[in-house]
Amino acid sequence: MPQNQVNSARSADGIWHNARIVPAGNPDHTIVDAVIVVRDGVIAWLGSEASLPAEFSDPALPRHDVGGRWITPGLIDCHTHLVYGGNRADEFALRLAGASYEEIARRGGGIVSTVRATRLADEDSLFEQSAGRLEALLAEGVTTIEIKSGYGLDLDGERKMLRVARRLGQHYPVTVYTTFLGAHALPPEYLGRADEYIALVCDIMLPTLHGEGLVDAVDVFCENIGFTVAQSELVFNAAQRLGLPIKMHAEQLSNIGGTQLATRFNALSVDHLEHLTEADVIAMQRSGTVAVLLPGAYYFIRETKQPPLDLLRRHGIPMALATDSNPGTSPTTSLLLMSNMACTLFRMTVAESLQGVTVHAAQAIGQGARHGLLEAGRAADFVVWSVDSLAELAYWSGLNPCRTVVRGGSITRGQP
Amino acid sequence: MPQNQVNSARSADGIWHNARIVPAGNPDHTIVDAVIVVRDGVIAWLGSEASLPAEFSDPALPRHDVGGRWITPGLIDCHTHLVYGGNRADEFALRLAGASYEEIARRGGGIVSTVRATRLADEDSLFEQSAGRLEALLAEGVTTIEIKSGYGLDLDGERKMLRVARRLGQHYPVTVYTTFLGAHALPPEYLGRADEYIALVCDIMLPTLHGEGLVDAVDVFCENIGFTVAQSELVFNAAQRLGLPIKMHAEQLSNIGGTQLATRFNALSVDHLEHLTEADVIAMQRSGTVAVLLPGAYYFIRETKQPPLDLLRRHGIPMALATDSNPGTSPTTSLLLMSNMACTLFRMTVAESLQGVTVHAAQAIGQGARHGLLEAGRAADFVVWSVDSLAELAYWSGLNPCRTVVRGGSITRGQP
Ligand SMILES: [Zn+2]
Ligand SMILES: [Zn+2]
Repeated sequence: MPQNQVNSARSADGIWHNARIVPAGNPDHTIVDAVIVVRDGVIAWLGSEASLPAEFSDPALPRHDVGGRWITPGLIDCHTHLVYGGNRADEFALRLAGASYEEIARRGGGIVSTVRATRLADEDSLFEQSAGRLEALLAEGVTTIEIKSGYGLDLDGERKMLRVARRLGQHYPVTVYTTFLGAHALPPEYLGRADEYIALVCDIMLPTLHGEGLVDAVDVFCENIGFTVAQSELVFNAAQRLGLPIKMHAEQLSNIGGTQLATRFNALSVDHLEHLTEADVIAMQRSGTVAVLLPGAYYFIRETKQPPLDLLRRHGIPMALATDSNPGTSPTTSLLLMSNMACTLFRMTVAESLQGVTVHAAQAIGQGARHGLLEAGRAADFVVWSVDSLAELAYWSGLNPCRTVVRGGSITRGQP
Repeated sequence: MPQNQVNSARSADGIWHNARIVPAGNPDHTIVDAVIVVRDGVIAWLGSEASLPAEFSDPALPRHDVGGRWITPGLIDCHTHLVYGGNRADEFALRLAGASYEEIARRGGGIVSTVRATRLADEDSLFEQSAGRLEALLAEGVTTIEIKSGYGLDLDGERKMLRVARRLGQHYPVTVYTTFLGAHALPPEYLGRADEYIALVCDIMLPTLHGEGLVDAVDVFCENIGFTVAQSELVFNAAQRLGLPIKMHAEQLSNIGGTQLATRFNALSVDHLEHLTEADVIAMQRSGTVAVLLPGAYYFIRETKQPPLDLLRRHGIPMALATDSNPGTSPTTSLLLMSNMACTLFRMTVAESLQGVTVHAAQAIGQGARHGLLEAGRAADFVVWSVDSLAELAYWSGLNPCRTVVRGGSITRGQP
């Protein structure tokens, strides 16, 4: 089933030449006639062919002629709920056929149906179901991904999701960062007892799962239909006690003050942001918080209020883009389609969209020092694209111009 | 380059069993525990396993266990401009960066840039450029496609496009129907002389290309920025003289009476239709004209006026869906994404979207007797899908659940 396992990869060591590269994902800063030297899985050098140091001219080194194609950093999907059981296609069909939300809830639909299917699935089944989605993302050049828990909503269920996320990273050529999102929704058995559930999240689930090495960051769904600011603060305090970075689903459907709280905790990112205010943006600027925009959810739920890109630009907030891949509001597995939607629907520029899935996405998961840039000394994660112009990465929908993927110094997809 | 040529295909003859099938693409009418018998490339029988005639129980016949998966008719993309030179990604980037239409026109953008690139490309180059787009469509189970001319806008250019369309059908496992769209736009050398250009279209281009066997149907772009109703009528008269069926790009940006004209000529289809009126729909009902909806263009140009689905439903008009794949207003190569957009943006039902890319799409190109249905006696064109529910074909974006494609009785993709 997993067709692109690390162990089938070939070394990418050698001289990748005759390339055009965008080291920071910004098409305004490119190197043409470029070379990337990969040695022991690391970028040993990069720059223009003319300035290649003599030590790399050794004709014994393997040479990969890129044929004038473009190379970007490996893509990063910095906000996903990729691991879950079942899907909600039948609910989608019912809604289109005119069923009301009440009717769908009565038939067992909504997030509780995903919670039920996720709790029922064993770890192997959950792995298999999620693997197909991951494979679709990897086919487009994703080399780093964030995966959240949040459909278990009890200790065993959340553990199972996070273990599957880690296993995906072991079986596929992708670096996985996990986020504990126990505070995603109120589990049905805690109806009317949200504070009790939050206490369970803070006192039992988070410390236990962190102790098992399963948690890289902590997220909360702060919303009228999610958790309050006060409840979110309890979760952030618990994260802080464990030294874990925090993120937040904020200002998607309303503004209840989530971003203001998250920035007081120096959140890595706040995500969605359709209802963000300028005061929020100023707070983000002070705390160095990244804005993660999720056009797939905006599109799928037919939102009409757009995140305030002009405010974000004016205050110099890094903007990242992600799939939000999830069964209820963003059943997508294409990060390139998100670039297309960000440009088409939000009027992002091509440069912004490309930085949004590389350098800014890395910052959104607190890994700006490791991922998202092509730079000597970093692991060799990059993608060769069969395009004439980088704008094609946002322009097409349904066309995948990914030719070759190098990840951690191995060729994991396509030919050299 | 062409990776899925007919000559590498294996015979699909035998018993396809343990399937769930939707013979007419309508999920409300399915057969579970179903069998399709393929003999000499034709569907010899289909129905439930229990009623399989004795003659097909011969254990010597090859058996393909579908594993309980869904089978639909092969998909049909009934409106494309797939063959063209270059692309307009840089224009897309310029517009996002704030360039005005005037500025883009000054830099050589717009449809004239595609006309220029198409005229400049030789036939082999045009084939290569278009082949990548076709491969993306075929990967999702497309077995029949309509391809229009319309970027040559002179005899040689239109001939070259139509020849490439025919060649694509010879080299790939797909049935191609060609449409002559000489009246797509006014070529720059005819500025201010639209009637003269239409005379060229009617008197020279269409008869010549039809005489060369390159034309299966005739289309006109009838719009304020295209051709008038009077000019369109001249083209339809010319088509009628040659016995060719007609189609029309109508009521996309305004209503200038295109549909009324097209229905008087019993058009196979009118396409786009955002500005369609009830009187138009009534005329379509009388003439048996199919409504072809193009959500990719609606999405890409950020249209807000929707085609009147309720009117079309009320009057029983068959609705088809297509990619409109073209470099200016719909740079997409995913018919499944169009199903997703039709459901998400237009609130089509899942059943409507599936019929829209099968049975109704076949009618839109005048091939309802040949394509779009699974029926004994027809060529075996079908797709096996790795989904639990057919709703998944419209629910996901970026995920391709196509497992096996059978076309003309050969397995052209995936495993049996
Ligand atoms: Zn999310
Ligand atoms: Zn068109």
